[in-house]
Amino acid sequence: MQRPEPPYYAVIFTSRRTDVDHGYAERASQMSALAAEQEGYLGETSVRDADGLGITVSYWRDEAAIAGWRKNLEHTESRRRGRAEWYEEFDVRVARVERSYGFER
Amino acid sequence: MQRPEPPYYAVIFTSRRTDVDHGYAERASQMSALAAEQEGYLGETSVRDADGLGITVSYWRDEAAIAGWRKNLEHTESRRRGRAEWYEEFDVRVARVERSYGFER
Repeated sequence: MQRPEPPYYAVIFTSRRTDVDHGYAERASQMSALAAEQEGYLGETSVRDADGLGITVSYWRDEAAIAGWRKNLEHTESRRRGRAEWYEEFDVRVARVERSYGFER
Repeated sequence: MQRPEPPYYAVIFTSRRTDVDHGYAERASQMSALAAEQEGYLGETSVRDADGLGITVSYWRDEAAIAGWRKNLEHTESRRRGRAEWYEEFDVRVARVERSYGFER
C-alpha cells in the first residue's frame, strides 16, 4: 500500500474466525475488491494466522468515506453474515492517523 | 485484550520479515512482555502469516506513553536490529482511536 500523508483514518478490524466456512474466503475477497472502489479509499493490509486470529487495517481519506462504505448494501449484508456465522468475536476501532514513517531495505 | 474507552492511541506496525532468524522470535516475545510493563500500556494484538506479512497493533493511553516506550533502551536496540536484519520493510502509523465497538458470540 502507498504511504499517504497524514492526517487520514484507519479502521482497525481484529477478529477471530469460527470454524464455519460457507463461502467466507470468497466473500472476504469480494469485500476487499469492493472497498477498493469506494470514494476515499486509500488502501488495506490484512493478515490472518493459522489459529484464525486476523487483523485487517483499511485506510480512508476521512470519516465520510468510512460512513459511505458502511452504508454499502453488499458490505452491510456481509457484516450481518459475519455476526451470524463467520466470527467468534471481533473489534472495530476507528482511528485518526496523525503521523507515520516507513522503512524499506 | 480489554476494550478501553476512547480516546486512546494505537501504534499500527505492519511489516514484512526477511528470512533471517538470529533470535527474532525470542526478541519479539521479550519486547511484547516489556511493552506490557510500560506506564500507559493498554494492550496489543499481533498476527503474522506464513508469508511473513505481519501486523501488530499496540494500544496506549496517550502520546506520552508511546514516547516513553520509544525511549526504552532495549526497545531502541531491538528497533536497530530490526532495520539491520529482521525486516524487509515496515510502516509505523500512530493514530488516535476515536470510537470502537465489539462483538462476541
